[in-house]
Amino acid sequence: MKEMTLTYDHLWQFANAVFRKINCPEDQARLATDVLLSADLRGIDSHGIARLSGYVRLWEVNRVNSNPDIKTVHETPSTAVVDGDGGLGLVIAPKAMEIAIQKATQVGTGWVAVKNSNHFGIAGYHSMMALKHDMIGMAMTNASPLVAPTFSVERLLGTNPICVAIPAGQQPAFVADFATTTAANGKLEILQRKNQEAPEGWIQKKDGSISTNPNELKDGGALLPLGGDREHGSHKGFCLGAWVDIFSAVLSGANYGPWVPPFVSFLSPPANPVGEGIGHFFGAMRVDAFRPADEFKNHMDNWITRFRSAKTVEGMPQIIIPGDPERESHAERLKNGITLNQKVAEDLKELGSKLNIAF
Amino acid sequence: MKEMTLTYDHLWQFANAVFRKINCPEDQARLATDVLLSADLRGIDSHGIARLSGYVRLWEVNRVNSNPDIKTVHETPSTAVVDGDGGLGLVIAPKAMEIAIQKATQVGTGWVAVKNSNHFGIAGYHSMMALKHDMIGMAMTNASPLVAPTFSVERLLGTNPICVAIPAGQQPAFVADFATTTAANGKLEILQRKNQEAPEGWIQKKDGSISTNPNELKDGGALLPLGGDREHGSHKGFCLGAWVDIFSAVLSGANYGPWVPPFVSFLSPPANPVGEGIGHFFGAMRVDAFRPADEFKNHMDNWITRFRSAKTVEGMPQIIIPGDPERESHAERLKNGITLNQKVAEDLKELGSKLNIAF
Repeated sequence: MKEMTLTYDHLWQFANAVFRKINCPEDQARLATDVLLSADLRGIDSHGIARLSGYVRLWEVNRVNSNPDIKTVHETPSTAVVDGDGGLGLVIAPKAMEIAIQKATQVGTGWVAVKNSNHFGIAGYHSMMALKHDMIGMAMTNASPLVAPTFSVERLLGTNPICVAIPAGQQPAFVADFATTTAANGKLEILQRKNQEAPEGWIQKKDGSISTNPNELKDGGALLPLGGDREHGSHKGFCLGAWVDIFSAVLSGANYGPWVPPFVSFLSPPANPVGEGIGHFFGAMRVDAFRPADEFKNHMDNWITRFRSAKTVEGMPQIIIPGDPERESHAERLKNGITLNQKVAEDLKELGSKLNIAF
Repeated sequence: MKEMTLTYDHLWQFANAVFRKINCPEDQARLATDVLLSADLRGIDSHGIARLSGYVRLWEVNRVNSNPDIKTVHETPSTAVVDGDGGLGLVIAPKAMEIAIQKATQVGTGWVAVKNSNHFGIAGYHSMMALKHDMIGMAMTNASPLVAPTFSVERLLGTNPICVAIPAGQQPAFVADFATTTAANGKLEILQRKNQEAPEGWIQKKDGSISTNPNELKDGGALLPLGGDREHGSHKGFCLGAWVDIFSAVLSGANYGPWVPPFVSFLSPPANPVGEGIGHFFGAMRVDAFRPADEFKNHMDNWITRFRSAKTVEGMPQIIIPGDPERESHAERLKNGITLNQKVAEDLKELGSKLNIAF
């Protein structure tokens, strides 16, 4: 079996059947499938259907609750804390974002911290939910520790992504969705498959020295915060990752830093948890809580147009506005299908056999 | 005249007298002085008294209004837009932050966008105002364009700093205050004075090629977004700078991107403004809008203690928690005085002579 290209609908039916098989209620299975596959459509392959068997394995060891009672445990007019009851982050996150949007409708902005959750797919899905309401959306999450702060040899932070989605008028929305490391883990996986070296500044060895080996994490190495080293601002990348960790988990009551449970089922969560599950943080801000929405969107169109038309370095393409590549991928893959690499295709086939679902 | 060391009180009296001389009301002069000198205390020399003569020159050409009518022009329970009436950002910013804090007191969080302002000193001062209320504080501002987005040869963004200040219990607060570029402009000024080269990844030449010349900006070069180049994540630094620009200026109605007026009085603002003055954005979130403040602060203490005690790369100092270096500088300089380099000392002496204030 080599790589395979399948339609979005085909993969959607498969993933949905898998979520139903692990006893997700019908509406939650649909939501989880939508969120999961939005990653594949947007070209963020590391966060899409490639993770499906991982979610199932977490459910098998009772670390994912497929029928959670998701509830608000504390709130003010503009804030809430949601307890995800150990459910799939794919389900908990959009429900928490809906609460942020409701609060923004009422008082201008809404901010929701989530505890007792699991991996939530791509941050972009959740923050983009705000766009159709003429709101700015924000989403962030902590993740299992793979990143060494500046000067540290210990892995204390996850790749802790942030997404900010900002509506425009005629132009497509501005959607900045990025890990707070120099390179996301998915980038390393691509190099591993191609047997290529990583650039300096992405990873370090177990002792903190420079490495270009994309397999270094297996030997106790670490990803590096955005910036790579102190001279190039890695302390700022550390600030960003720490900010995400604290908003997602110290505000909500989830596990933070080195206590965040691992995504993989074969590694046990730390024995002395400081909170419940992993944490997320969501925000929604009504644009017209600041100025009339049309006025704002006209200026966003002007901002985007001006930046996109900037003079480029010779031989370089036009300036990329955050969200451009993902939107192009979405259109292309919806039309031409989603290509799975050999390893993912085999993994899904095996999953289908195990659960008796045709792949 | 070589470098000079003066006490905080001495410099405070001088700066306050200068602000009074340009007709700032007494309370506003005091506030502007407090904010300005907090930069010198915290070791961010580029944003402190070194800029005083620059503010005066902007006032001389009628680009700073020393007696502004600062007012809220739009609001919801959790948001406000403040029109700074062309005043000093040093005065407008803390007043806007007060509004954010008031709103957070009422509805959990408060978010204030500011237009028609000027340079606001260090973001840290404003966000740290939240700490004594057991709130998380955020501050950001756009600035005159010196930064080229990834692939661009045009300077379209400022160094656009962000600060997030988070209260702790026994431990000092977490205060991450950083420019969204690889290196802040102040770092280049230090290299210029020492006649040293900059590392690769900080700046580019006019044509977008690599430069290590700290004077490159005078020849049309640009600072680079955090990350430095595409391979090292400069598109993420661009996302951050763009986010700050849009929150500060497109939400508020200030100038954004290449339209942001220059700080220096000898350069004219763009002839076709898209908004009023420069823009800022502030946030305050009550910790107990999420969980009991004591509980939160205990976990912050645990977070900080765990990260600070992490195992370091051999020969490296302990892990630096955001805010540590600035807090140490504050204590040291309050005790031993603030050292001004020769150029700044001469500039202030000249300013004193011009305004008839003893330096």
